[in-house]
Amino acid sequence: MTLTVAVVGASGAAGGEALRLLSAHDGVTITHLMANSSAGSLLGEHHPHLRVLADRAIEKTDVAALADVDVAILALPHGASGEIAAQLPDTVRVFDAGADHRLESAQDWQAYYGSEHSGTWPYGLPELLHAGEERAAAQREILAGASRVAVPGCNVTAVTLATQPGALLGDKVDFSQLVATLAVGYSGAGKALKPHLMALAAQSNAAPYAVGGTHRHIPEIEQNLRRAGVANPVVVFTPILVPMNRGILASVTVPTTASAAELREVWEAVYADEPFIHLLPEGVWPTTQAVQGANIATVQVTKDEHSGQLIAQCAIDNLAKGTAGGLIQSMNLALGLPETMGLPTDGTP
Amino acid sequence: MTLTVAVVGASGAAGGEALRLLSAHDGVTITHLMANSSAGSLLGEHHPHLRVLADRAIEKTDVAALADVDVAILALPHGASGEIAAQLPDTVRVFDAGADHRLESAQDWQAYYGSEHSGTWPYGLPELLHAGEERAAAQREILAGASRVAVPGCNVTAVTLATQPGALLGDKVDFSQLVATLAVGYSGAGKALKPHLMALAAQSNAAPYAVGGTHRHIPEIEQNLRRAGVANPVVVFTPILVPMNRGILASVTVPTTASAAELREVWEAVYADEPFIHLLPEGVWPTTQAVQGANIATVQVTKDEHSGQLIAQCAIDNLAKGTAGGLIQSMNLALGLPETMGLPTDGTP
Amino acid sequence: MTLTVAVVGASGAAGGEALRLLSAHDGVTITHLMANSSAGSLLGEHHPHLRVLADRAIEKTDVAALADVDVAILALPHGASGEIAAQLPDTVRVFDAGADHRLESAQDWQAYYGSEHSGTWPYGLPELLHAGEERAAAQREILAGASRVAVPGCNVTAVTLATQPGALLGDKVDFSQLVATLAVGYSGAGKALKPHLMALAAQSNAAPYAVGGTHRHIPEIEQNLRRAGVANPVVVFTPILVPMNRGILASVTVPTTASAAELREVWEAVYADEPFIHLLPEGVWPTTQAVQGANIATVQVTKDEHSGQLIAQCAIDNLAKGTAGGLIQSMNLALGLPETMGLPTDGTP
Amino acid sequence: MTLTVAVVGASGAAGGEALRLLSAHDGVTITHLMANSSAGSLLGEHHPHLRVLADRAIEKTDVAALADVDVAILALPHGASGEIAAQLPDTVRVFDAGADHRLESAQDWQAYYGSEHSGTWPYGLPELLHAGEERAAAQREILAGASRVAVPGCNVTAVTLATQPGALLGDKVDFSQLVATLAVGYSGAGKALKPHLMALAAQSNAAPYAVGGTHRHIPEIEQNLRRAGVANPVVVFTPILVPMNRGILASVTVPTTASAAELREVWEAVYADEPFIHLLPEGVWPTTQAVQGANIATVQVTKDEHSGQLIAQCAIDNLAKGTAGGLIQSMNLALGLPETMGLPTDGTP
Repeated sequence: MTLTVAVVGASGAAGGEALRLLSAHDGVTITHLMANSSAGSLLGEHHPHLRVLADRAIEKTDVAALADVDVAILALPHGASGEIAAQLPDTVRVFDAGADHRLESAQDWQAYYGSEHSGTWPYGLPELLHAGEERAAAQREILAGASRVAVPGCNVTAVTLATQPGALLGDKVDFSQLVATLAVGYSGAGKALKPHLMALAAQSNAAPYAVGGTHRHIPEIEQNLRRAGVANPVVVFTPILVPMNRGILASVTVPTTASAAELREVWEAVYADEPFIHLLPEGVWPTTQAVQGANIATVQVTKDEHSGQLIAQCAIDNLAKGTAGGLIQSMNLALGLPETMGLPTDGTP
Repeated sequence: MTLTVAVVGASGAAGGEALRLLSAHDGVTITHLMANSSAGSLLGEHHPHLRVLADRAIEKTDVAALADVDVAILALPHGASGEIAAQLPDTVRVFDAGADHRLESAQDWQAYYGSEHSGTWPYGLPELLHAGEERAAAQREILAGASRVAVPGCNVTAVTLATQPGALLGDKVDFSQLVATLAVGYSGAGKALKPHLMALAAQSNAAPYAVGGTHRHIPEIEQNLRRAGVANPVVVFTPILVPMNRGILASVTVPTTASAAELREVWEAVYADEPFIHLLPEGVWPTTQAVQGANIATVQVTKDEHSGQLIAQCAIDNLAKGTAGGLIQSMNLALGLPETMGLPTDGTP
Repeated sequence: MTLTVAVVGASGAAGGEALRLLSAHDGVTITHLMANSSAGSLLGEHHPHLRVLADRAIEKTDVAALADVDVAILALPHGASGEIAAQLPDTVRVFDAGADHRLESAQDWQAYYGSEHSGTWPYGLPELLHAGEERAAAQREILAGASRVAVPGCNVTAVTLATQPGALLGDKVDFSQLVATLAVGYSGAGKALKPHLMALAAQSNAAPYAVGGTHRHIPEIEQNLRRAGVANPVVVFTPILVPMNRGILASVTVPTTASAAELREVWEAVYADEPFIHLLPEGVWPTTQAVQGANIATVQVTKDEHSGQLIAQCAIDNLAKGTAGGLIQSMNLALGLPETMGLPTDGTP
Repeated sequence: MTLTVAVVGASGAAGGEALRLLSAHDGVTITHLMANSSAGSLLGEHHPHLRVLADRAIEKTDVAALADVDVAILALPHGASGEIAAQLPDTVRVFDAGADHRLESAQDWQAYYGSEHSGTWPYGLPELLHAGEERAAAQREILAGASRVAVPGCNVTAVTLATQPGALLGDKVDFSQLVATLAVGYSGAGKALKPHLMALAAQSNAAPYAVGGTHRHIPEIEQNLRRAGVANPVVVFTPILVPMNRGILASVTVPTTASAAELREVWEAVYADEPFIHLLPEGVWPTTQAVQGANIATVQVTKDEHSGQLIAQCAIDNLAKGTAGGLIQSMNLALGLPETMGLPTDGTP
């Protein structure tokens, strides 16, 4: 017997990706597509690539109807998802692709989002190390059976997965000087009609945004690294839009006294059994094209002997492993399904 | 009376850009197009965008003919240009877009290029600060009347221009921890028929290359920063190919105790009168699309208060300001022409 | 019990797509990856997006080994596939993505390919109408149980599916004046290292090729239309490379005296039950982005009242429905499996 | 002494391109930048590539101020330009990049634009043949000294230039069956914030629009062909957006009984002396990348012996030769300046 699922925000980019993946997921039945802005239209009008569900009608967001489903997936701007979640009974499992319940610090929330914090939910990054772990287990235990899950930010997933094994090297890695520069595709910004997201502005362009310490993903990355055992992480974070639809390539440097061999050994140990994280062969660097549409993070690390810094990179599809794929992975864990169920690992370049 | 110019490597990407700009330059007459690999064909077959010179024939590289021109522009792989330059009389002004004569340290050359050093030429970056200068003057004096000029590497130009004003802040900027991550277009790699430069590999991709301390531009950047007065620069350098033809966006971080205001003040002072460097208004970040085809570097700097690092960025067109435009700018200085002659500042996005 | 499959040409673009789809196909086990040019390497080196099979070794093409598999998929240039196929016993089902066995006319083969014809195999386009049919059935009967299948050319599939319902309108459609213009992605050209297929040549470009009546897909399209009942089809065929990896948008005009309503009715009748052909709602035109990675053809038709011509369009992913997806669809029919088995209908834009 | 020029619609795509070209034009001084929507801001905020005029302020559209300039360039949506033009004295030369005054038939205007016709101005396509001419001269005479010029539609320019020499072949070319399919870049649609013009919708996509006889450029193309001497032109017109910013590749077929040699001869005769039209060498087809930023149309023609149709293609930059470049070319003629003044012929790919 499959579980019933509703997707709220069905006409958006993240909602569409959730529907693409859920259509091929054997454990669930999609019973509701909701989106206030496009209620009354058919899904295919908003997502011409979704043929399985093309003729399904989009409803207005309806909290009463949501109260009856097994699983509610919220693919909404922050604020909106918190408001709906607050009205749903505990019997509904809620997975929030928005930011509302990611941060543990109400103070950080206030500083970076400028509103009151809605509380913290179990964090939907199964591969997140907890201090002292050599392989991620504690986070999976937290997610098992959870009735509320906050899905990580896509850039956060990329930077966390690239670097967290370094936490096991203690003082040998100086996380107070972590510099993360990210090449980011346009789907991360959703479908908002803004001048800098138009085709004319995007083609042949590399365009930085939110430069200089104010990006909302910074406290979330640092929270993750602290969870992994880093005493005092400080992140410089610079995202750059480049002409691709899907994908994040996070390139990260951290000063280190560890050797290349030590780095390789630790990264290998941490990710050896992860079904969705592939530490690439030495000398092969992650690329975004290869992970398009897949719930995969490819990772590489090396020691730059010239500078004494480690360079770690991670490529993900921001919509897949970065949002909807990661969400379904957490959903599988929460519902007691196989973690890998319905999640593709091959890309579609 | 105009000067006669020969371009060697005319069918390549850098040679083509030199010809595009020289066609509209009032001080020179293009008398020879040379390229061994395509001798006997017409220029238009290799550069369909060059209509002014489309029907001009390409000759084999001919040192005797070169000895008779006023100006020889070498747009060749390193090694090849050094060999030709060695055979030309001093009466010919030689501008080398290759790497052979950029580095001052024979040891660095040996370490990064693996061959014997051919000697050091005046360095063709007019805007390069010398220690103690607040505005670039000494380098222009070196270039005035020079009969040999080594044109900088394109990535080097971007990183140097983004960061060199920091040298004036002394101990307040810790250049031993400079992290440069670059989004780079495909023309930087020339026209080589390599799998990773195919359209199939490039579209929708962000693809790092030469990661980890071995890139040949590293010693050149550090040489420039030392020239600008930095005691001990150490550069981490990570280039990432993104789907654009022209353009480099260099995003650089350096730990600093200077304030945002101090940074702004120094950067403004250094670049206030530069005809080809535009420090953008506060809060506006450089983009590559805007400088396509122009001999322009756009620059921005800010203080990331969260991390205590400065973030500086520079966008150039790697073929224009990064190679052929910078070359012509140096040529103008060497020949006693107005520095800005024939050099566009508006982009063609 | 699954069937054993070998893919020959595994490191190429079509072979890679076959492997991507076969990895998720429950009816087969991939036992051999063969490719002479890359024998000894791992599949992941050639297709970084294929993670399921990334560590599988590529073997030299080995006819003896092929003789033992249930299914041999040949993803090779024409000529090469014909030669291998000739050596395989009838017990092996052979699916040829190359052109060798598509054409029925030895004379056409000689004229367009310049070599001796290798004979005609059952043609792998299940949706191909036969004269008099209103829904495709005869071609599926031919494919049921076939031990040899010639997979159609990708452009041919697009033009055929766009226009073949018109055959049912008899004299009302003048197929002697069919004009087909196609926007084509780069994967159609494979991975050959040619100057016009490099990233530098492709970005921001629309580049026609093989213009003027000599394209090898012309006789194949006309053969299909004759099969569908058209007396005397004459095709003008103009392909244009545009900056995308996957995808063909075929835009076709044909003079007609039929009304818009008649056209709509016939197209709807022909495609009503086709699992992989979607006649879009009136006024919605096919786009290539929506079918990326899917075994789907989207089709639209209208009457241009101004000119008295019908305009029909079809979008497919040239690698998926255009090659490997269509191949697997035919394979399913030949092997007695459900026609839709393992074939995605949602795109991954 | 230079002439004073005002550009109305300065913050739009066409206005920006006019300013890019006028900045480098020795015959004019730009005295006013006007745009109601962005009045009060600086030009550089809207066009980061325009550095020469970056700090110039944009004014509200001011008819009184316009009455004092020598030249007013209107880069506005149709309707808006007609309204302003009606208020300007004859002493101001007005060049309208909009559609208001292109069509001669008030009935066509009503049918395609749905409003009252504002009258017909001299048509700004200097290369337009008049019936009986073998080289364009009459249209240049019309433009010489004109005080009002209607700049052609960009798609119209491409289709007209590709095919008009065929008018000289009389009955040998059947213009009642002209099929034009165009690959079109995004700048043709301007900067409107519409979902189908977003980066997300554009990348890796080929997307037809305005299919089926209703496109407003159809009566304009037919008007041009009649002017060139064609008795009864009927155009099928299908534009397809492809992922590039600038550029139109028009691919056109017309049934013909003329031979390849006859076609070549006539096309050569018509375009032999045109400074901005390049008939490419036989076998070389136009590409859009090569004409980016240039006031150039590249043209090719051949006979498809298989179908008995001619295939003619034309590539232009829709913003340059297609709009602002063509406008300045007509302006030069109207003002008695050299026709080629300030107009680049080399592309910037």
